[in-house]
Amino acid sequence: MSPDHGRFSLNQATIKYASLAEALQVAREAGYRSIGLWREPVQEVGLDTAVALVAESGLRISSLCRGGFFTALEGAERAAALDDNRRALDEAHRLGTDTLVLVCGGLPAGSRDLAGARRRVGDALAALVPDALAAGVRLALEPLHPMYAADRAVINTLGQALDIAEQFPVQAVGVVVDTFHLWWDPDLLAQIARAGSDRITSYQICDWITPMPADNLLARGVPGDGHIDFAPLTRAVAATGYAGDIECEIFNADVWNTPYAEVAALVAERYHQLVEPHL
Amino acid sequence: MSPDHGRFSLNQATIKYASLAEALQVAREAGYRSIGLWREPVQEVGLDTAVALVAESGLRISSLCRGGFFTALEGAERAAALDDNRRALDEAHRLGTDTLVLVCGGLPAGSRDLAGARRRVGDALAALVPDALAAGVRLALEPLHPMYAADRAVINTLGQALDIAEQFPVQAVGVVVDTFHLWWDPDLLAQIARAGSDRITSYQICDWITPMPADNLLARGVPGDGHIDFAPLTRAVAATGYAGDIECEIFNADVWNTPYAEVAALVAERYHQLVEPHL
Repeated sequence: MSPDHGRFSLNQATIKYASLAEALQVAREAGYRSIGLWREPVQEVGLDTAVALVAESGLRISSLCRGGFFTALEGAERAAALDDNRRALDEAHRLGTDTLVLVCGGLPAGSRDLAGARRRVGDALAALVPDALAAGVRLALEPLHPMYAADRAVINTLGQALDIAEQFPVQAVGVVVDTFHLWWDPDLLAQIARAGSDRITSYQICDWITPMPADNLLARGVPGDGHIDFAPLTRAVAATGYAGDIECEIFNADVWNTPYAEVAALVAERYHQLVEPHL
Repeated sequence: MSPDHGRFSLNQATIKYASLAEALQVAREAGYRSIGLWREPVQEVGLDTAVALVAESGLRISSLCRGGFFTALEGAERAAALDDNRRALDEAHRLGTDTLVLVCGGLPAGSRDLAGARRRVGDALAALVPDALAAGVRLALEPLHPMYAADRAVINTLGQALDIAEQFPVQAVGVVVDTFHLWWDPDLLAQIARAGSDRITSYQICDWITPMPADNLLARGVPGDGHIDFAPLTRAVAATGYAGDIECEIFNADVWNTPYAEVAALVAERYHQLVEPHL
């Protein structure tokens, strides 16, 4: 019999090269009750098939990654991004998750207007909130590490994400707390308390390793392999009353080249060791 | 006749492979009035010779890099770091600069106690303040980009640096505003205003380029080559009344492999174009 990992969910990106069917099987066999999905492998099989595979697996979907990328200037690109986010909300609803994770996007090509790009994130959320409410899916704004400010996400602290999220109903907009992106922030514990269980839609664990791998998009480490102390962060999240999923999402070439089952077992072991005792 | 670059100073690290004598000559011939020095090339020729070379050059020394690295736990390593900072204060005084730039250090090996390391930065400054006042040299606390929190510097925002600096007399402790490290911070303009001309000891310009070079320590770009809008940051610094040096410090393998005189001319050109109009 496989162990039970309770609130711990395997994000599919941690076993990136697995197809949807493989990922569901790996998670189930490793004792997970839930999995976080990505849109690309879902789209590979088509939404109907994906929904059927998920139903068969018996797994709950903790989140869908990802919407966002809506910092483009007014025009066709921005309209297309908003439409794509509406499709993503529908996909999330069909897959049975209430959480669509958003990576909000970096500076538009050639632009240095960081403040403007940040304003457009709020504007895009305002446009999408009615769709989110209709779909019963929350837009989960994920602040990304400041090293991605130029090219991935102009929202870089939890405080900044909350300044935006708080303009909208909690049923429509929440925030993701990802240790890799936020661990360095001297204001993090206070901002987690501010977020509260109302706004936190996902708690994601992932370590910061050094030296940084050459590709900074693949710089994440297995919890316990790096510099982050998961105890105070987890206690702060638990203190809000947050009772939702805890996902592990790792972008790392070495992890991706390790057999899926091994990865699924390893990150669960680290969760039980480093995170669960502090919940 | 060479142009005059006014308040703009060439940090020696921008032409890293130049000896002290070469760096002084390059800066003077390119029309600089001042240069920021590093301790290693100074120590290579010895302090007495360095002082003589500087006097001969006619250049003013805008800063000395670097002290710091004092996050070690109580013990021999920490005592040695404090002693080394005292030597650095003396070197700065002898070289005629009032600014010793501090890179405060990352987590001690094997430690995940980020809060503790941050407390020890304040403790180290407290220990060094009398020496700084005696030397007439300010300890210039430099917040480094959050991507260096684990291995280089646990002080990562201007607000955090000011929380520490404000515990000490302005004559003893100031802060460095470096665009590369701080540009992403949504609270930056407010924190620059908070710092004021009293606390800002150095304004350093350097760009954020993408994709990030494989070695994240060498990720800096020539102003204008990247994503930073220097106008609002420079206006914010100028609005405080800051009238001190503006340095360009670039760690970048391509820049280091370019002829020194070319680099000195290029960064000055960018200063005149992107920064000076906003002072």
